[in-house]
Amino acid sequence: MAKRAVILLAPGYEELEAVAVVDILRRAGIEALIAGLDQGPVPSARDVKIVPDTTLDAVKDQRFDLIVLPGGLDGTERLAANQAVVEMLRHQLEEGRYIGAICAAPTVLDRHGLSRGCTITCHPICQEAVKQSKLSQERVSQDGLIITSQGPGTALEFALKLVEVLEGSQKMEEVNKGVLARI
Amino acid sequence: MAKRAVILLAPGYEELEAVAVVDILRRAGIEALIAGLDQGPVPSARDVKIVPDTTLDAVKDQRFDLIVLPGGLDGTERLAANQAVVEMLRHQLEEGRYIGAICAAPTVLDRHGLSRGCTITCHPICQEAVKQSKLSQERVSQDGLIITSQGPGTALEFALKLVEVLEGSQKMEEVNKGVLARI
Repeated sequence: MAKRAVILLAPGYEELEAVAVVDILRRAGIEALIAGLDQGPVPSARDVKIVPDTTLDAVKDQRFDLIVLPGGLDGTERLAANQAVVEMLRHQLEEGRYIGAICAAPTVLDRHGLSRGCTITCHPICQEAVKQSKLSQERVSQDGLIITSQGPGTALEFALKLVEVLEGSQKMEEVNKGVLARI
Repeated sequence: MAKRAVILLAPGYEELEAVAVVDILRRAGIEALIAGLDQGPVPSARDVKIVPDTTLDAVKDQRFDLIVLPGGLDGTERLAANQAVVEMLRHQLEEGRYIGAICAAPTVLDRHGLSRGCTITCHPICQEAVKQSKLSQERVSQDGLIITSQGPGTALEFALKLVEVLEGSQKMEEVNKGVLARI
């Protein structure tokens, strides 16, 4: 059975980070759903409007092998302020399943104590906001169930890491044969 | 006055390539319009649905400093088969303005004789289709008005190159400070 992932889209998400993850997960045969916090097209940080596959409300009680939070300052604020998102993330870790977060989004985990004591990386401009986690300067970092990354320029490495975590390094390398990322 | 670019979106476009270009051009202060070949949301190669800013019909007679063709095999076929697209590209070169094409899309230029004698690069799986142009194995290649690149994994380098061509290397480096691409 295909692994399942959900990418949570709040207005102001970083478009390249969101799309890189969806593209690469789908290339790997992982069912990757884009879930909007609300109905209708979601405008990105630079106003790319994506029509989500579903809504947070429709999927918040479903089981996913991976939940992904794209960055973007405004999108991240909205994710952090959404009680259903925070509960979904908390439940995901309790059940021993993966969370990926990139750019500003790792601060969502930090702020709600979900990455307490874990090593995370994030965009350099967000590092001061990290209070409860250990900070890594790596482009992509994994600590147990939590995979984090730094920004748009690391999004492909992050997405390929998520494939590696869910499907192994052979699948990751197979996907990258068509993608041509430098990893 | 801001430079103007248009990204042409046909069903089956490679989503990461399209979004990387829009994201990076907009970060550089370039007016980047997404124009759909038809009305309504356009599904990508892996079914990411983007709502275009405008339509080909609305912009085909407008002046752009840059026209960008994202890849994706199906999207590229549709671009190559569209007479208005081909006329727009031909006129762009006649007027001495830039065209960018990535992945499978450089073959659109080759097929219609628009890159005849020029050096272009493209995705390795499309190289055999190149008949009238000189083939480069570079990740990003520029020959005069034509800038080409290889695939999703080179899309950020391609997008940053487009910024460099339109706005100079200082602007490109300034944009990449927030983007964190390895260039």
